[in-house]
Amino acid sequence: MIKPVTVYDIAKEANVSVATVSRVLNNSAPVKESTREKIAGIIAKHQFQPNALARSLFKKETGMIGIILPDITNPFFPEVLSGLDIEARSKGYTFFLCDSVSSNRDFTEQYDRETRFLNILMEKQVDGIVLIGGRINLAKPSKEMVQEVVEAGKRVPVLLINGNLPGASLHRVAVDEKKGAELAARHLVELGHRNIAFIGGFKQMSNTIQRIQGFRNVLRESGIKERSDWIRTGGFSVAQGIELAEELLQLPIGERPTALQCANDLVAIGALKAARREGISVPEQLSIVGFDDIPFAAHSIPELTTVSLKCHEVGRTAAGVMDKLITRTKVAKTTILSPELVVRESTAPPAV
Amino acid sequence: MIKPVTVYDIAKEANVSVATVSRVLNNSAPVKESTREKIAGIIAKHQFQPNALARSLFKKETGMIGIILPDITNPFFPEVLSGLDIEARSKGYTFFLCDSVSSNRDFTEQYDRETRFLNILMEKQVDGIVLIGGRINLAKPSKEMVQEVVEAGKRVPVLLINGNLPGASLHRVAVDEKKGAELAARHLVELGHRNIAFIGGFKQMSNTIQRIQGFRNVLRESGIKERSDWIRTGGFSVAQGIELAEELLQLPIGERPTALQCANDLVAIGALKAARREGISVPEQLSIVGFDDIPFAAHSIPELTTVSLKCHEVGRTAAGVMDKLITRTKVAKTTILSPELVVRESTAPPAV
Repeated sequence: MIKPVTVYDIAKEANVSVATVSRVLNNSAPVKESTREKIAGIIAKHQFQPNALARSLFKKETGMIGIILPDITNPFFPEVLSGLDIEARSKGYTFFLCDSVSSNRDFTEQYDRETRFLNILMEKQVDGIVLIGGRINLAKPSKEMVQEVVEAGKRVPVLLINGNLPGASLHRVAVDEKKGAELAARHLVELGHRNIAFIGGFKQMSNTIQRIQGFRNVLRESGIKERSDWIRTGGFSVAQGIELAEELLQLPIGERPTALQCANDLVAIGALKAARREGISVPEQLSIVGFDDIPFAAHSIPELTTVSLKCHEVGRTAAGVMDKLITRTKVAKTTILSPELVVRESTAPPAV
Repeated sequence: MIKPVTVYDIAKEANVSVATVSRVLNNSAPVKESTREKIAGIIAKHQFQPNALARSLFKKETGMIGIILPDITNPFFPEVLSGLDIEARSKGYTFFLCDSVSSNRDFTEQYDRETRFLNILMEKQVDGIVLIGGRINLAKPSKEMVQEVVEAGKRVPVLLINGNLPGASLHRVAVDEKKGAELAARHLVELGHRNIAFIGGFKQMSNTIQRIQGFRNVLRESGIKERSDWIRTGGFSVAQGIELAEELLQLPIGERPTALQCANDLVAIGALKAARREGISVPEQLSIVGFDDIPFAAHSIPELTTVSLKCHEVGRTAAGVMDKLITRTKVAKTTILSPELVVRESTAPPAV
């Protein structure tokens, strides 16, 4: 093992006291400019890695952005990240991803992990923190959950993607999810569907609440009577999609929905599988609409009609906002992007 | 902004010199035990975040593991990570993910980013670094590429997953990929296929070379004449799968393969789509085998027959090995896991 350079080695080589090196490292008290440069130079010239703290104090920034996200195995997040990464990289930043997913999908554990990551990222002296998913999707987060992020925001720029924390007044980049759900529902109504169910999501989460609101708005404006038992939440996974769709598709023909609007694409892929199990052909006997437009939405057979949340654009926009926050450039508190309907193969007029 | 605690505040409160605090922080010279404890106590009690460096020097470890991977949008990696994370978390570690993917799939840029991440992780004083994919999958990496990782391994435990660096003598956890490819090919041969093509992967990568070797071994042992134009590489994506499969499926019936062995599941999903475009039904007219067993292999229609690389088990095993490296417990240099054939719906005997 190579012995790391210590403050003593630097002091010795610069022929100054350890206290002087500390002053430069901590930027805590005036040091003669020529001495400061000499010390900086010695640290810089060493083949050894200067420690991150020292570097960041010299450079005033680390070039590092931490991202806290809830589940890297949901392809939605990697897509947003890849847009974010491309843009941020061109501006000289590098990312750390922090996956807060709990081993047993326990939300309390997940939010605890978010707290831990917030603390670690601050300790590691990142230049900025991006939160996507997790607690910022809760309709009613606890005061502590909000306060922790607000406190982090006092130390380092914090940006929320596709979520919010009531009263926190943090910078946000988000897609209008309610509008997205309206686009999906309107598409089904325009195809002639009147028996439409909504499946998926978590009812305590604001993203689900907004998607259901958009869905219900369109039913109401179309004069379609809403059936509360045809709005079924329970999760965002393929497995949940299979389960929720099965419940509805096992109803007798004529009593079951002719179209399923899904909380996300994974749920829609589950619905495709449930339909196949029940021998119901998509889109001839059942229309299915997804949400997000992850790559697999275009890879499924049939390809999914869905609502694009423009993952890449969201990511790129977020990187731009974060750069402005770090460089203290004025930027709008909230940036809202518009979703887009993507019609593929999984929707058609209802069978007569 | 809250003013961070500096070495000066600590020294003042502990009623010792800055040099003494520095000695404790750097662990560089003896300090009376009672004084050391007093200083540690003052830092610990502060509401302010002690900086990461100070913490890690007190604790002798940061509890952080950095993972460098080549493309988070390939679902194979999130699956391995999720196994790794569950196991490592139970041992008290936290992860940073570093995605080296280049914006335009430029490999030179990707390997440069790996170098940058290696340096950053060392600066951030992580306890260990895991490499998966990227340069460690190259059959012939440059000397510099190997040397950089060897140097990192001198400072901090480095573990390679499913790859290798010739001559580097680093710890590895890997699945026997050649054996996996043999399982897939033998399955097709046992179903009665004699006209089998291999598609996907990159010919300069050791993972592809091993998978093709396994494929060819089985053809040879089965007395099937190999056709070099039926081994087609070009990438690991769905788009590549579509393109490579199209080339073969556009050949006239009787002259085209009756089965496709794919370099990974994404390529197989592309092959499913190509077959559908050409009006060829799977598995009746064409058998398709994937590789990896990502979640979408079970979500596609028809569900993919594939080779499980046991992502979760690889991840969990890697976390265990990394923990042993960090705690300096003896552990085997190389751990090889066995892959497993998973028969689902995309394979059947050839049409007569």
